[in-house]
Amino acid sequence: MNHNDKQDELAHKRAAFQLPKGKVYLDGNSLGPLPVAARERAREVVEGQWGDDLISSWNTHDWIHLPATVGDKIGALTGAAPGQVVCCDSISVNLFKVLSAALKMRPGRHVIATTRDNFPTDIYMVEGLIEQLSDAYELRFIDEQDIAGGLSEDIAVVMLTQVNFRTGFKHNMQQVTQQVHDCGGLMLWDLAHSAGAFTVELDACKADFAVGCTYKYLNGGPGAPAFIYVARAHQQYYRQPLSGWMGHASPFAFLPGYEPDEGIRQNLSGTPGIIGMSVLDAALSVFDDVSMKQIETKSRALMRYFLQCLETAGLSDVLTLVSPHEDCRGSQLAFRHPHSYAICQAWIDEGIIADFRAPDILRVGFAPLYLRFTDLDDAVRSLAAIVNEKRYERPEFNQKNMVT
Amino acid sequence: MNHNDKQDELAHKRAAFQLPKGKVYLDGNSLGPLPVAARERAREVVEGQWGDDLISSWNTHDWIHLPATVGDKIGALTGAAPGQVVCCDSISVNLFKVLSAALKMRPGRHVIATTRDNFPTDIYMVEGLIEQLSDAYELRFIDEQDIAGGLSEDIAVVMLTQVNFRTGFKHNMQQVTQQVHDCGGLMLWDLAHSAGAFTVELDACKADFAVGCTYKYLNGGPGAPAFIYVARAHQQYYRQPLSGWMGHASPFAFLPGYEPDEGIRQNLSGTPGIIGMSVLDAALSVFDDVSMKQIETKSRALMRYFLQCLETAGLSDVLTLVSPHEDCRGSQLAFRHPHSYAICQAWIDEGIIADFRAPDILRVGFAPLYLRFTDLDDAVRSLAAIVNEKRYERPEFNQKNMVT
Repeated sequence: MNHNDKQDELAHKRAAFQLPKGKVYLDGNSLGPLPVAARERAREVVEGQWGDDLISSWNTHDWIHLPATVGDKIGALTGAAPGQVVCCDSISVNLFKVLSAALKMRPGRHVIATTRDNFPTDIYMVEGLIEQLSDAYELRFIDEQDIAGGLSEDIAVVMLTQVNFRTGFKHNMQQVTQQVHDCGGLMLWDLAHSAGAFTVELDACKADFAVGCTYKYLNGGPGAPAFIYVARAHQQYYRQPLSGWMGHASPFAFLPGYEPDEGIRQNLSGTPGIIGMSVLDAALSVFDDVSMKQIETKSRALMRYFLQCLETAGLSDVLTLVSPHEDCRGSQLAFRHPHSYAICQAWIDEGIIADFRAPDILRVGFAPLYLRFTDLDDAVRSLAAIVNEKRYERPEFNQKNMVT
Repeated sequence: MNHNDKQDELAHKRAAFQLPKGKVYLDGNSLGPLPVAARERAREVVEGQWGDDLISSWNTHDWIHLPATVGDKIGALTGAAPGQVVCCDSISVNLFKVLSAALKMRPGRHVIATTRDNFPTDIYMVEGLIEQLSDAYELRFIDEQDIAGGLSEDIAVVMLTQVNFRTGFKHNMQQVTQQVHDCGGLMLWDLAHSAGAFTVELDACKADFAVGCTYKYLNGGPGAPAFIYVARAHQQYYRQPLSGWMGHASPFAFLPGYEPDEGIRQNLSGTPGIIGMSVLDAALSVFDDVSMKQIETKSRALMRYFLQCLETAGLSDVLTLVSPHEDCRGSQLAFRHPHSYAICQAWIDEGIIADFRAPDILRVGFAPLYLRFTDLDDAVRSLAAIVNEKRYERPEFNQKNMVT
């Protein structure tokens, strides 16, 4: 047993997950594994609530409040007081809502600013919104390493993914939010690679808006519903265009005209996907007895240990680390290698699951709730063998799958 | 045993559902019951695909094609050839996409027309879209009973729910679509109460667009993902604004600019909810060995039989039928009574599950795949007792739940 595992305060959490035997899962930043509680809830919601109680479950199992209760649980993990987060739709759809509302809150400003290396869907959604609205609006790229230098008084909203999905670079939320506010803009954070991975303080940082997904470090399941945060101070001025019945002040009164709910619930649009959201609700219970600080501390320790192992194995010069220092990165490490894709496939073939991101990044995610230090010993041993034997040259590791 | 059940060609389908014992379910038009195949698939997708195979399931279990394969299955039930239906998001969000695209396809026309008694979320979404776009657009109400009389050359798109959610009134899809086309407009059908209930012929009727939900007659589960139909002829001109990565021509190339998929897949936005969509996929297998014509025939027979039973029980004058003749109604019957709400609650108390729609409608849904004629005997017997004993005056049946 690895010495570090004996001292690990979170070691007991591993039992809360169904983990495939004989594998090391370094891809929790893409799809978190199945929590045992989520497995049980899936059966309960499908077979008991839907199967036995049918339509009455909207009341008896409180399906109707699920988006808000799950939202508050996510809020507790991201530094948001209750009533500011709601669970709904996808990040993409939620970005459309928030960006639309933000532009209305800054009339006279016509720019949405982001970084060129933001996750593509974030950029695509801005393109779609601008095309929808009119060419009066502009998508502007600013430098990830110098946000302040890119700010100007024509910017209505700055949209940043806090952690770069490729490199793992992490923005300083407090500092950047302050800079954007100093320039009169609104700050929208995409927490896809943040929520559940490390301490996030939305309220304390005075973030205006945030969105995030729940299938990575929150382990909500494939395509689990996303979330949206609107700071309470903004809620009375906020108006998003996907004004479906679930966001109405009185959804079941079937009133003839739309009247938005006064709070965060306005962001709901259509009927929520109850099965997926219930599974997510149960998955979040894994976090009940741990703090995000503990998770962040272990995340850093895991990454430090992994880098040490690489060094010891003589791999530090072969795989070029492109992630920054631990104070400015999320819970992942990214390495560059000309054969990254094949290395990743060969690693997977050995039961070490990481992923590849174009053009040449081997991406390694560190999810502290279930990952052990001994897993990293195994992972690096395997990686060393692959590299030393040039196993990445084998044809079977160079056939590309559509989803990688 | 009721004589009609002996002759019922669909009688064997009842075994394909998990139905609560001792209950008669007349609310399949609100939430269909749990198909056995869906129950099995829920376990498989959660425990096997997610739990054991994790991220690799996007390839190995073909999650990535699920929206299209499920879409084509829904297409087969609604008269749409493959490649024109995709499963995604909610009706509300899908309406926003289609309406946005439709307005661009009819430049110079500024009106979205619908009926005042359309399901509220449909109307709310138009309000949100118009507020988003500018006041240059107009929401106009036309008479449900005289669509042709409301048409004019400033109408870009007519949006109708084929079956009125309260009364069950059903539009003649072929005739109305033709009338709208004659006036130069585009026709968008909401099939919430149509899909899986009776024969729908989207292609043959030359419908331009359709949306629909899958948790009613398609039995996809609470909040199951919705669908969207864009006629093939329109796909090359169609451009919707929720341009997320899953609708990109090459989602996993992570290209810097958005390029819409050339086909129906453009309507995808964020990552699809795999658990809910897999459950729906399995639920649709119930339809594999039956035709929509068989379902429609039994639906009519069930409704006729129910009305006969009411007549025999002396209830025809007490409960006022507000649904039209069977040639112009969906698979539901709506009755007016001053105490409809309490009658519905008292009925539910007896195990007969129907629902109430404001202000005074008792709504009875007939889902032919699992409903027996003998169930209707029981339902009417119970209803007669409630009415004759004036059980609807009891206080316990007059306490309103939020969701009814």
